[in-house]
Amino acid sequence: MTIASITLYRQWQPFRDGTYTCSGGRSAEGFDSTIVEITSHDGAKGYGEMAPLGSFYDPAFAEGARAAMRELAPRLIGEDAAGIESLNRRMDLLLKGHPYAKAGIDMALWDLAGKRGGLSLAAMAGGAEGTAIPLYRSLAQESPDAMAARARKYIAEGYHRLQVKVGLDVNDDIARLETVRAAVPSGTVLFCDANGSWGTAETRRFLQATRALDYTLEQPCGS
Amino acid sequence: MTIASITLYRQWQPFRDGTYTCSGGRSAEGFDSTIVEITSHDGAKGYGEMAPLGSFYDPAFAEGARAAMRELAPRLIGEDAAGIESLNRRMDLLLKGHPYAKAGIDMALWDLAGKRGGLSLAAMAGGAEGTAIPLYRSLAQESPDAMAARARKYIAEGYHRLQVKVGLDVNDDIARLETVRAAVPSGTVLFCDANGSWGTAETRRFLQATRALDYTLEQPCGS
Amino acid sequence: MTIASITLYRQWQPFRDGTYTCSGGRSAEGFDSTIVEITSHDGAKGYGEMAPLGSFYDPAFAEGARAAMRELAPRLIGEDAAGIESLNRRMDLLLKGHPYAKAGIDMALWDLAGKRGGLSLAAMAGGAEGTAIPLYRSLAQESPDAMAARARKYIAEGYHRLQVKVGLDVNDDIARLETVRAAVPSGTVLFCDANGSWGTAETRRFLQATRALDYTLEQPCGS
Amino acid sequence: MTIASITLYRQWQPFRDGTYTCSGGRSAEGFDSTIVEITSHDGAKGYGEMAPLGSFYDPAFAEGARAAMRELAPRLIGEDAAGIESLNRRMDLLLKGHPYAKAGIDMALWDLAGKRGGLSLAAMAGGAEGTAIPLYRSLAQESPDAMAARARKYIAEGYHRLQVKVGLDVNDDIARLETVRAAVPSGTVLFCDANGSWGTAETRRFLQATRALDYTLEQPCGS
Amino acid sequence: MTIASITLYRQWQPFRDGTYTCSGGRSAEGFDSTIVEITSHDGAKGYGEMAPLGSFYDPAFAEGARAAMRELAPRLIGEDAAGIESLNRRMDLLLKGHPYAKAGIDMALWDLAGKRGGLSLAAMAGGAEGTAIPLYRSLAQESPDAMAARARKYIAEGYHRLQVKVGLDVNDDIARLETVRAAVPSGTVLFCDANGSWGTAETRRFLQATRALDYTLEQPCGS
Amino acid sequence: MTIASITLYRQWQPFRDGTYTCSGGRSAEGFDSTIVEITSHDGAKGYGEMAPLGSFYDPAFAEGARAAMRELAPRLIGEDAAGIESLNRRMDLLLKGHPYAKAGIDMALWDLAGKRGGLSLAAMAGGAEGTAIPLYRSLAQESPDAMAARARKYIAEGYHRLQVKVGLDVNDDIARLETVRAAVPSGTVLFCDANGSWGTAETRRFLQATRALDYTLEQPCGS
Amino acid sequence: MTIASITLYRQWQPFRDGTYTCSGGRSAEGFDSTIVEITSHDGAKGYGEMAPLGSFYDPAFAEGARAAMRELAPRLIGEDAAGIESLNRRMDLLLKGHPYAKAGIDMALWDLAGKRGGLSLAAMAGGAEGTAIPLYRSLAQESPDAMAARARKYIAEGYHRLQVKVGLDVNDDIARLETVRAAVPSGTVLFCDANGSWGTAETRRFLQATRALDYTLEQPCGS
Amino acid sequence: MTIASITLYRQWQPFRDGTYTCSGGRSAEGFDSTIVEITSHDGAKGYGEMAPLGSFYDPAFAEGARAAMRELAPRLIGEDAAGIESLNRRMDLLLKGHPYAKAGIDMALWDLAGKRGGLSLAAMAGGAEGTAIPLYRSLAQESPDAMAARARKYIAEGYHRLQVKVGLDVNDDIARLETVRAAVPSGTVLFCDANGSWGTAETRRFLQATRALDYTLEQPCGS
Repeated sequence: MTIASITLYRQWQPFRDGTYTCSGGRSAEGFDSTIVEITSHDGAKGYGEMAPLGSFYDPAFAEGARAAMRELAPRLIGEDAAGIESLNRRMDLLLKGHPYAKAGIDMALWDLAGKRGGLSLAAMAGGAEGTAIPLYRSLAQESPDAMAARARKYIAEGYHRLQVKVGLDVNDDIARLETVRAAVPSGTVLFCDANGSWGTAETRRFLQATRALDYTLEQPCGS
Repeated sequence: MTIASITLYRQWQPFRDGTYTCSGGRSAEGFDSTIVEITSHDGAKGYGEMAPLGSFYDPAFAEGARAAMRELAPRLIGEDAAGIESLNRRMDLLLKGHPYAKAGIDMALWDLAGKRGGLSLAAMAGGAEGTAIPLYRSLAQESPDAMAARARKYIAEGYHRLQVKVGLDVNDDIARLETVRAAVPSGTVLFCDANGSWGTAETRRFLQATRALDYTLEQPCGS
Repeated sequence: MTIASITLYRQWQPFRDGTYTCSGGRSAEGFDSTIVEITSHDGAKGYGEMAPLGSFYDPAFAEGARAAMRELAPRLIGEDAAGIESLNRRMDLLLKGHPYAKAGIDMALWDLAGKRGGLSLAAMAGGAEGTAIPLYRSLAQESPDAMAARARKYIAEGYHRLQVKVGLDVNDDIARLETVRAAVPSGTVLFCDANGSWGTAETRRFLQATRALDYTLEQPCGS
Repeated sequence: MTIASITLYRQWQPFRDGTYTCSGGRSAEGFDSTIVEITSHDGAKGYGEMAPLGSFYDPAFAEGARAAMRELAPRLIGEDAAGIESLNRRMDLLLKGHPYAKAGIDMALWDLAGKRGGLSLAAMAGGAEGTAIPLYRSLAQESPDAMAARARKYIAEGYHRLQVKVGLDVNDDIARLETVRAAVPSGTVLFCDANGSWGTAETRRFLQATRALDYTLEQPCGS
Repeated sequence: MTIASITLYRQWQPFRDGTYTCSGGRSAEGFDSTIVEITSHDGAKGYGEMAPLGSFYDPAFAEGARAAMRELAPRLIGEDAAGIESLNRRMDLLLKGHPYAKAGIDMALWDLAGKRGGLSLAAMAGGAEGTAIPLYRSLAQESPDAMAARARKYIAEGYHRLQVKVGLDVNDDIARLETVRAAVPSGTVLFCDANGSWGTAETRRFLQATRALDYTLEQPCGS
Repeated sequence: MTIASITLYRQWQPFRDGTYTCSGGRSAEGFDSTIVEITSHDGAKGYGEMAPLGSFYDPAFAEGARAAMRELAPRLIGEDAAGIESLNRRMDLLLKGHPYAKAGIDMALWDLAGKRGGLSLAAMAGGAEGTAIPLYRSLAQESPDAMAARARKYIAEGYHRLQVKVGLDVNDDIARLETVRAAVPSGTVLFCDANGSWGTAETRRFLQATRALDYTLEQPCGS
Repeated sequence: MTIASITLYRQWQPFRDGTYTCSGGRSAEGFDSTIVEITSHDGAKGYGEMAPLGSFYDPAFAEGARAAMRELAPRLIGEDAAGIESLNRRMDLLLKGHPYAKAGIDMALWDLAGKRGGLSLAAMAGGAEGTAIPLYRSLAQESPDAMAARARKYIAEGYHRLQVKVGLDVNDDIARLETVRAAVPSGTVLFCDANGSWGTAETRRFLQATRALDYTLEQPCGS
Repeated sequence: MTIASITLYRQWQPFRDGTYTCSGGRSAEGFDSTIVEITSHDGAKGYGEMAPLGSFYDPAFAEGARAAMRELAPRLIGEDAAGIESLNRRMDLLLKGHPYAKAGIDMALWDLAGKRGGLSLAAMAGGAEGTAIPLYRSLAQESPDAMAARARKYIAEGYHRLQVKVGLDVNDDIARLETVRAAVPSGTVLFCDANGSWGTAETRRFLQATRALDYTLEQPCGS
């Protein structure tokens, strides 16, 4: 079962709620997704995807991923599609790093192998665990009251997990968490995400001030 | 696809060359193997195996493994055979430790999943690497000359990898390795295995004395 | 004084209060005990015991222990029963690991040596410390109020040490400990046992929330 | 002095000696270079370059770098060209990682600043050290004798620094270094480069076998 | 562009508020500054400065710095003023340590290079960040109330950053910080500086007692 | 079984070969031994011994040990002789440190317990290993030839383990070991003891110079 | 100036307040002191002292110290009394360890050297710091109220430093410290000494419970 | 006994053999010594000295030391000369660092204290060890043969310790040590001093090449 062709599709996936604004004047309006389609010589097809959130969160930006795939794809044509580990080693030899680009191809290879055996990807990896996973909503940085109002709205819609965006002035951030925590039921799971915007001093103050609250802190300090 | 039944088969696999003798008066005449057969409700069958080398090398002795499987198997009947990770967690909950016994069942579950999709175990794990692997022969502890003669015989039969058993008097062991190394072509890969019989002092002496030779040392000191 | 025979007795020891239920749907109704009897050539007898709590707590399950003893016992007949250290080394050579099985035999050998000299096991190990030890009772997971009621009952019966079983939802677990701690005299020694059911996040929350209480936490996180 | 425009030029720089072959079937025929030209509003121009060796050595492949620059460049137009540190922080905010792409722009900014002051880049960084640097030649992997012959040729041409490419079979690699070392004057500086092709075992053997020779080992093990 | 001459100017810079008193009976009335002027053969001039706070804070005392410059300066005449890194290495060769004295010369060399290119020192180092920096005022050790009064005066003058001098009796020091913190707006940034006067015990007590306040502690323990 | 009395006997044990001379002008002519006799209320007796080599090797000097025993013994009369662990804790409470003195009493208590049960000390500790142990002889510091002659004499008498005393001039010490090693069969086990007389520099030199020889180095550097 | 004689004097120094009782049934009624007198050939005399608190606190018990001095003293007669470092090395050679015994002799040697020069011991060591040192009183373990009463009595007598003896039941110990701390002025320095009687669990509880109090904890856990 | 005056004397101490040349074009012709004389109110005088080797070896250059002493000396007049530790703390308070300058004053204070008691500095520190110390000669960097000739000359004059100056081209340095080592008796103690002129690569090569020789390496790498 050799690889007959690899096709990349670019797909724009706009956000349902429009522009999403982060700290530092960064914003995004949707996902610039790349769909990878691998076709084997017998016509079977496997699909993978690579869809970064804007270009500011991590090294995986959309054009770079497509550039890497364009570099890699022609050198995989004619290889055995079932040798997935071997193909990954080959990709590493051709291009160091850029795992986000290789992941889209790897995903399509596993999908192709599963389809050929009539197995889902979950079955290939040891079986699915349940039939659903809980979703969560993110509360963008607004005033504490505005964030609490939005939190109550999400709770009313049935969400039980919320992410509180912080990372500006730490005194305001403390108020953000306190206000939201007080606005939601005690069973609600709260994450607090600073996207690495604080230094260690701000982080220490935030932890001290909020140590009586029930939440989990995500990425307080940038690298 | 639920598990309809689990059957254990005991199979005696005698050594081609008869009794195999180790240090400490330990010996074995073959493998006391346990074959695990898992049948799903639709009649598909997957197979696994558990076959320890005698009862003196590691905690995986044959009767203990069968005792553990007898404890575990009845509690897996009726479960979804495709939920392999979930079944493994269940086995860990029922019985801590004894991974050698659980491995036989795990192996049969993967085999069953692959057969249902018409995929080999290698395909399930990312593809086979080549179609053959080099074998090696082990040289039991004899006099240096006897071991060298046996090494030459194996080389003549086509083997390129030999394991030199050491672990008694370290002066003799040094002679064993030197004599065998001199008797085989420089391209022959030599392993030297003490099965943990030395202390650190013997190990240090052996390494000093043989540091000009080309070989790899396996398990010099016992735990 | 050589070992003339080793006999294993299986003894079912039902719990006085019937079924004992743990988290994860695991339960037990008693101890599946193995009594080891070693008889020396002059007719003296020493006794040891191996009695795991169900088959879900640790690697020491009853059938596996008996399988190991059946493997070991025949190879000890005729050996000097006084050479206890030597016999232990021999058991380690015959079978790696499985210390729970060997412990039953080791215990019987020491008992035999002591009986021959008219000495108790305590005397063999340096003398007894006092003539009694305080017992404790375990409070299985129920509602906080039910556990507190049971705690008061045990206190009334004269117990001064109680174990509070936790390990489900951590918010409920906090209530369990707080309610029991409030229900018993300040001199009561409390252990809180999660049987490794929490992750580090739950453990951290529990410790924070209960840091003003007087208790000792046992095995919060599984390995 | 704001940035008026950023222009990328692609320049193919063929190797003087044609195809360059590495281990693993990897080869290159030249540098796929990107020249960055930054023009300030007053017409001054600064230049930087990004030129990876093929696409197999490191994460810096040519198309990926150009994709990143296309992402970054439009967002720098109109900014103050003298605020180089500030512009670098801005690039890091826009795109995490990919330092090789940003380096081309950073280089052009420093060149632009220096030209405006009539200073060379060396003067901007604290002054040049001398007026020339010794060059070295790399000896691609051939037979030991062929490599020694080529080494003598380079010595005759006036080179005093040579790089010996190794990284295949370690026995052959030892011969490569020994033969070249013997073929050149004792004052010749030798580097030995395995490009990360060995594991720790091969590295240890190589170091042991060549410990009497005068050379420096570069990148023996891959990451 | 060689160095034609190096001239040192001593300049007394009296404090605007007169004598400044520290703990331990140490005081100062101004800065005993040394201005370094380097003139190149073409008449260009660069300036650096070395101005320690009294003679009790660090190893950089004014006479010692001048002594070191007198040692170094004659040996730099005639050298290339653009080779700044090279000149620094030369100074290190001539005199180990005493970086504060060399810094004055280094500063003058960079200033000279920038002036020759019409660039400010900020431009030489990658561009200026903004056009102003916030100043802070230091509150010398007085009674808590006196320090709070002074703090309010500085706030009224427009300062937003204050340094609270502590380091005598730790009980009084705690009162100093508490009183000042209560006297200023919550947005005021407070530093608390003990100038290394405490031991670890005093530091621990201070930190415990003030852990609810918003401030940063500077140099609690002496080396 | 209470302790009725403790009696100390001083016994002079002269060396068979007369004065034994060490480095530093230290010498000894025999052991100044203390025999401890503990009698229980039923007349049984247990014996222990404390016999330091001169007064210069370690903190266990004879008079100090007797002084400690005189301090301890009266406080043990009337206690239960079988509570050995308890008696040891009591001795630690009465007097910190001085384990050599307590060891004589501890030994007598175990002997007493064993005698009461008709068990040897070996049986109390898990059984004897064999019926003999190899002895070794020590070669005092003389000229290399004299030491080699004495080594041959001991080999002829049947010894297989020798200790070579070193610790003076390291060049002479190297010759001592080389000469003795060459004078004895390869199967002879050699220890080399410097009694802590070297510093790290001498030790390093000795190890470098003798790294091809088969021996074990004891206590090269003093504390 | 050679050592002409060394004389030991035993001096009983009874406690002013009679028997002093510690935990574990240990008590003392005074110091069993040893005074060391060293006389030089010219009749000058130097004095040292060794006075342990009972025999239960540390390895320095009185009879052992005298035994060690009796071992050492005869071997120092005739040596140069001014060679103090040399004499200390000699004592270490003659007898390892037992620093408390050697300290008495060392002290007498320094006193002798100082007297010969008309200098006090303080002057020999760099000068005295002030003319007095603050004393403290120890509060033996009684009920919390009794200890507080005694603390007030000592404060009234002029003491500013008190030591609170703890180390029995940790709940009582917490009350002891709390009650005493509340009974004395805030300027009183409190030490809390457990004499190593707690384990780590008791220590942790004590520290948690008293973390708001001002005191220093001494030796909580035994070694 | 207060300090009445402190006087500094500058004394030029020319080298007996004229100019001394080091690597890097550094040279010296003698010691620029500062003698410190402290006079107490009763007319007693104590002397100290500070004499750096040129100005290139360490931070202790002569003019800087005199500058520091001029800063310190006036502030010590009238203080108690016997409070040496107190005076050192005061000097540290007045000026951080510069221990070489303070050492001259400290030395004079100890000398003054000793003289007042009629004791030498050695007696103040615990007694002199012997009456002489072995001197060594330094071999400046010349050709290997010239250095060997000079070494033989020094041996003939009675020296037993020589220092071999290295630190230029490492191949030549290896020859220097080999040639000198071969030219002197085996009992000669050799030091090899690179004055920090090598990097780690040169140091490694030197150590490898000379590992069979008897010498001690001093300061191979600069800080």
